[in-house]
Amino acid sequence: MIASIITIGDELLIGQVVNTNATYIAEALNKISVTVKNILTVGDTQEDILQAFIKQFSENDIIISTGGLGPTHDDITKKTICKFFNTELVKNEDVKANVERILALRNMKWTSAADEQTYVPDGCKIIPNKHGTAPGMLFERDNKFFIALPGIPYEMKQMIDEFVLPLFSNFNNGRIILHRTLRTTGIAEAFLSELIGDIDELTKVASLAFLPSPTGVSLRISATSDSYKNVREAIAEVENKIRSKANDYIYGTDDETIEQVLGKLLSERNLTIAVAESCTGGLIANRITNVPGSSKYFERGIVTYSNRSKTDLLGVPENLIIKHGAVSEEVAKAMAAGIREISKTDIGISTTGIAGPTGATPDKPLGLVWIGYADLKNLITKKFLFGDDRVRVKIRSSQAAMELIRRIILKIQI
Amino acid sequence: MIASIITIGDELLIGQVVNTNATYIAEALNKISVTVKNILTVGDTQEDILQAFIKQFSENDIIISTGGLGPTHDDITKKTICKFFNTELVKNEDVKANVERILALRNMKWTSAADEQTYVPDGCKIIPNKHGTAPGMLFERDNKFFIALPGIPYEMKQMIDEFVLPLFSNFNNGRIILHRTLRTTGIAEAFLSELIGDIDELTKVASLAFLPSPTGVSLRISATSDSYKNVREAIAEVENKIRSKANDYIYGTDDETIEQVLGKLLSERNLTIAVAESCTGGLIANRITNVPGSSKYFERGIVTYSNRSKTDLLGVPENLIIKHGAVSEEVAKAMAAGIREISKTDIGISTTGIAGPTGATPDKPLGLVWIGYADLKNLITKKFLFGDDRVRVKIRSSQAAMELIRRIILKIQI
Repeated sequence: MIASIITIGDELLIGQVVNTNATYIAEALNKISVTVKNILTVGDTQEDILQAFIKQFSENDIIISTGGLGPTHDDITKKTICKFFNTELVKNEDVKANVERILALRNMKWTSAADEQTYVPDGCKIIPNKHGTAPGMLFERDNKFFIALPGIPYEMKQMIDEFVLPLFSNFNNGRIILHRTLRTTGIAEAFLSELIGDIDELTKVASLAFLPSPTGVSLRISATSDSYKNVREAIAEVENKIRSKANDYIYGTDDETIEQVLGKLLSERNLTIAVAESCTGGLIANRITNVPGSSKYFERGIVTYSNRSKTDLLGVPENLIIKHGAVSEEVAKAMAAGIREISKTDIGISTTGIAGPTGATPDKPLGLVWIGYADLKNLITKKFLFGDDRVRVKIRSSQAAMELIRRIILKIQI
Repeated sequence: MIASIITIGDELLIGQVVNTNATYIAEALNKISVTVKNILTVGDTQEDILQAFIKQFSENDIIISTGGLGPTHDDITKKTICKFFNTELVKNEDVKANVERILALRNMKWTSAADEQTYVPDGCKIIPNKHGTAPGMLFERDNKFFIALPGIPYEMKQMIDEFVLPLFSNFNNGRIILHRTLRTTGIAEAFLSELIGDIDELTKVASLAFLPSPTGVSLRISATSDSYKNVREAIAEVENKIRSKANDYIYGTDDETIEQVLGKLLSERNLTIAVAESCTGGLIANRITNVPGSSKYFERGIVTYSNRSKTDLLGVPENLIIKHGAVSEEVAKAMAAGIREISKTDIGISTTGIAGPTGATPDKPLGLVWIGYADLKNLITKKFLFGDDRVRVKIRSSQAAMELIRRIILKIQI
């Protein structure tokens, strides 16, 4: 089946918002072997939306539109759908019940805007919105599917995952496309490519894409065939060949984050952890605590931005900071040992570095970061150079700190 | 002038890569008052690319395409351009010199792939690529402009900034478009719309869009006219009318974040701050320290995920936690007072809540969050309900905590 994604909103056309909705939907449809033929972004203008609906619905089996379903005046998708399907808005009691539920959750009262949300084009099937008031809508015409979803990513994603994917998983015409991503960190794209070697050989079996990001390079393997067995075998063959060369750098697969992988490792081994952050400013704690259940292994985090807080809270000797500077191997070591001691955890981890834009000196450049690691037996430090962009330095440092723990737990060379 | 952006590449259609190129180009064109009518993404298929060129070039004044200009087998944009303009590839000496320069910089030798890069469609004007081997191309036909740029963001951006923007700045037919965004938080879209009221009146002067996100609802005002003066006046008129109704909710403008606004307020007043986080898990500290120069006012952050750490580090009495629970008004208060006292800062802020997915009880639902605030004179708490998604609860809590400080500093009702 062939799909077109239509994303609606002036904010996309003036470059105010990056179109992550289209990426999410495209990825989701590909996972169930629906081919996305094109992605079209149009503004909040009835004529443009209508023309997009007409052209794309005539050329594709599936249309998924997002945006323009809110209660304010610039939300005109519902009216345009009515025009497209030659129908009119009618009140829907299921939608009304959902709007009431959402308003109650938010402790909000009924308004005329809320009332408007309860009207939907006659003849559509409702796609329930768990997290918001705007319902999704499905029309089936001549074995074609038209779906309209709200543009709020959180709401849209739930509806894609729980309604759209199950719907089209059953319509798969025998052609299978699968993808598998191997997530690496701590190695640059060119070196990873060299390490794997003979990429031309691999791509005879399945296609391979290198996707660099601040957290590391992901390797995406894609294969297509007429049976799941063939596709899975092709992907497994390529994965095994890559792992035989670069396994130590692969921390996870598909959508796994290093904080999820780390959480699993710590849980399985009944290990606890505490974090002392300077240059990462709370990012490591924040990422670790994004994982549900992290309270089982994450005991505390301390963001020691001032020198005084390093001394007060972690027991880093004042003269150590004076002698070597706050960004130094010695201070990273003392911070890691200190956080472990006061929190009584199995592992302590620390970061200290120069995130910029100021603070660099001739022998301590922007992006210099020391990471410290302490457990019962080890007190280890590692030095990194992470470039001159403040937020990227923070992201790369947090990734490297968690990767360091993963490697030590798994006894991989650091 | 009206433009269409055509982004080419299978990686966009399978959701492997987010289309940040389109966002960059859209924003750049808008800044010089070129209206982007639509954004179309198609795959590496000659027929699809050609159809996109034909349709969009017939309906718009400017086409900007990115992607498909590399030397590998799936890069077919140049051949498609030849078909579209009924021309053929010819060797270009300027391009050849640039390819030689780039290869020398990278210490690479001449290959057949490099040679292919030196061929361009006959009749095009070359757009130099400072950072790569693939040249950009410009065609002018009947006062319309067709531009093809490489898809590598770093290369494309330089060509947009140094060639495309200067080119069209001069072609601006006197029509000016400007945007201004007012960023609100702590009020839902429907209530904000009601509070502002009479939106039909406002939209006679300038157009207005409501953009909800987990950090709040942004209001985008857009106006167009034949003079900067008129556009600025129209925007100012709408902004003033909105501010007369909803000013207290507006924390910033355009791309400002609340952490930037808060940083400015603290700096100007020489105030220091420390943070004690439970449910936000370090997110507040992380956001505050994303702002360059934050070390001037951010003294420390403590992520007290365990009860013991709340007692050890913040002096929250153990029996207070036993009596009221860790998620309670009393504990939020004790945490805020505690962090302020140990860090000796002007302001202490705290969060404690149930981010989920587990931990809820009948009287303490998922998403229940208490925020505490302490300064020399005040010890304040505020209760929130932020829904059932862990990461969203963290984001909304961090936003509400910073907004609370902003309101107290500016003496706005909380």
